[in-house]
Amino acid sequence: MFGPYLQAVRQAHPLIHCITNYVTANDCANILLAAGASPIMADAPEEAAEITSRSRGLTLNLGTLHAGRVPAMLAAGRQANAMGVPVVFDPVGAGASAFRAGAARQLLAGVRFAVIRGNLSEIRALAGLDGCPHGVDAGDRITPQTLEASLELAAALARRTGAVTAVTGEIDLVTDGTAAFCIRNGHPMMRSVTGTGCQLSCLTAAFAAASPARPLEAAAAAVCTMGLCGEIAYARLTPADGPAAYRDRILDAVYRLTPARLEEGARYELR
Amino acid sequence: MFGPYLQAVRQAHPLIHCITNYVTANDCANILLAAGASPIMADAPEEAAEITSRSRGLTLNLGTLHAGRVPAMLAAGRQANAMGVPVVFDPVGAGASAFRAGAARQLLAGVRFAVIRGNLSEIRALAGLDGCPHGVDAGDRITPQTLEASLELAAALARRTGAVTAVTGEIDLVTDGTAAFCIRNGHPMMRSVTGTGCQLSCLTAAFAAASPARPLEAAAAAVCTMGLCGEIAYARLTPADGPAAYRDRILDAVYRLTPARLEEGARYELR
Amino acid sequence: MFGPYLQAVRQAHPLIHCITNYVTANDCANILLAAGASPIMADAPEEAAEITSRSRGLTLNLGTLHAGRVPAMLAAGRQANAMGVPVVFDPVGAGASAFRAGAARQLLAGVRFAVIRGNLSEIRALAGLDGCPHGVDAGDRITPQTLEASLELAAALARRTGAVTAVTGEIDLVTDGTAAFCIRNGHPMMRSVTGTGCQLSCLTAAFAAASPARPLEAAAAAVCTMGLCGEIAYARLTPADGPAAYRDRILDAVYRLTPARLEEGARYELR
Repeated sequence: MFGPYLQAVRQAHPLIHCITNYVTANDCANILLAAGASPIMADAPEEAAEITSRSRGLTLNLGTLHAGRVPAMLAAGRQANAMGVPVVFDPVGAGASAFRAGAARQLLAGVRFAVIRGNLSEIRALAGLDGCPHGVDAGDRITPQTLEASLELAAALARRTGAVTAVTGEIDLVTDGTAAFCIRNGHPMMRSVTGTGCQLSCLTAAFAAASPARPLEAAAAAVCTMGLCGEIAYARLTPADGPAAYRDRILDAVYRLTPARLEEGARYELR
Repeated sequence: MFGPYLQAVRQAHPLIHCITNYVTANDCANILLAAGASPIMADAPEEAAEITSRSRGLTLNLGTLHAGRVPAMLAAGRQANAMGVPVVFDPVGAGASAFRAGAARQLLAGVRFAVIRGNLSEIRALAGLDGCPHGVDAGDRITPQTLEASLELAAALARRTGAVTAVTGEIDLVTDGTAAFCIRNGHPMMRSVTGTGCQLSCLTAAFAAASPARPLEAAAAAVCTMGLCGEIAYARLTPADGPAAYRDRILDAVYRLTPARLEEGARYELR
Repeated sequence: MFGPYLQAVRQAHPLIHCITNYVTANDCANILLAAGASPIMADAPEEAAEITSRSRGLTLNLGTLHAGRVPAMLAAGRQANAMGVPVVFDPVGAGASAFRAGAARQLLAGVRFAVIRGNLSEIRALAGLDGCPHGVDAGDRITPQTLEASLELAAALARRTGAVTAVTGEIDLVTDGTAAFCIRNGHPMMRSVTGTGCQLSCLTAAFAAASPARPLEAAAAAVCTMGLCGEIAYARLTPADGPAAYRDRILDAVYRLTPARLEEGARYELR
């Protein structure tokens, strides 16, 4: 069912405004191009809203956060909301400092997100900020054992914020609070490459921008795409290759992925 | 005729000061090293002029522009002008926001550029800021159909600013307002790699730094180098490769390019 | 003797807080992951100390220095000192501007470093700031001819600061002011890749974090690891490959390096 979502990105060529960290900005720009979208990186408060006004999607990422970037994110997010353009939130390290937690709280209060994507500890940090009850111990990573508790946590955040919530890890969960996709694509070596999460958030913005009426399916399609490309790329590695070769192969797999291959390779269940 | 310009970079090892965006700064540093130059990235107003004072060339790039970077660019540009060191301007997204347009206007007013390099919409935005008459519709990309109008636009900007103007796209134009090189190297897949334009601007600064008396030929040699390396790199790709492999192959082709091969592979006409 | 130091990194998975430049931050994050450590990049003064408080090691790097980053570095460094967590200082361009020299002076005064790593001109600049007598002309690069003078300079800085000092170049020296390792791993082509020094500083922080009681041996092990991986990677290059392929191969060699191979390939003498 996800092939058409990739096809939509390839046809729409959406321009995605990224307010993101400087560690993985290059990889984020390149994965957007590989998917058929276009990136524009701009994080000055003086221009953030104007850049968003020319874009079809927006990603806000908390990595290497600076004080000046928060008003830029708020202005861009409000502009996107006013235009009905999807906003993806990647709460990198939301639990790692009071500064990031405070920024996350401001953004959750001031911007309506189409999708929130993070790992389990980031999503738990957000859920905590947002006052969600999460009296479950979902652990730090999604495993078969923590799957149900993680899903409950994600669904609660989704219902509370109205945003499709994607928790990625060994297993990925994408839920709007009612329906949920449980996705089993990917490869453990992806954790050895910095920025695969940031890249997935940008990819999610591209998919949501191209199919704005279907954020749940668009986000799940993006998650399957990234994971499947992690599998395809892994199969190309030689014994001497490592994460640098792997990073490049993942990006190249995104470029080469066809809707048919995504249909064939996506491994998910709808719950 | 361009072989000696590459040779000059290899012999002079010019130190190039780059005030540039954080998305492609790594690629810019690496392409300068690959060409035989040395990069120094520094964008704090406190040190910009001093860093320029130790350099043989300067690039100013508007990507991920911040307010603090504008005074740094002005100070560095003035220092370079005082020393007679060439300055290359890359007006990334000059038309995308009032903030960037304002910065571009300040830079055009305060700094004398040796070369301005951008795509057609960036060059048109600059020309508009600068009050150039451009009553021609050059379209958004240089194609055989828009070639004459694009050349007229570039030549008008060159005459007005005194800077060699390079407009890059499917066809590249490099003009000082009188003579013009029309260059047909390159490959369409270069558009799938972020930062090839930023890299070319840095490469242009290296070529201009090594041949400061001949900015027109130096800029055209840099444009041919980048395009030819795009062709050489493309020929090395396998069917599973994509833009990540391509990005690396382009950089490696720059490293391996000999003056003789540049002579042989450069495809241009002087108009 | 260095195998166990690599093994310790692989077992401890230390989280390393990096306050570093935006040019090579991605490579720094990836090399930490490749070695078995985890990176966290954060340079806002609002969160620097808190991020350090969750980390096992800290790197401070002067590249693309901004005024706001200095208080962040000081706060993070003091936090690390209070916790007894090793801090590595990479004085990128310390001699290139008064701004960087001033920041270096503040950091040397305010933070106790476990290791200082730089090239010869950076180490000389630091030694000068710090009032070390260096009435020797060690030249700009460590060669067999300048070896003794370079060692004297490094040892004087080490004794003065209490930090293990690593001077890297054609030959690498690592000294605590008393004992010294003279290391002959590496390949000249590493100079054609931007950021190998920054990466080595981060790697050094990971090694020091995993073996905090032995900073001299940990730093020397990191230097051997980087140099040996430069040799292994070089052996994998084809005639068409250049620095982009080389950069990736180095990182992949770090990922694949075993303690046994490090034992076998390390080339050093203890003086």
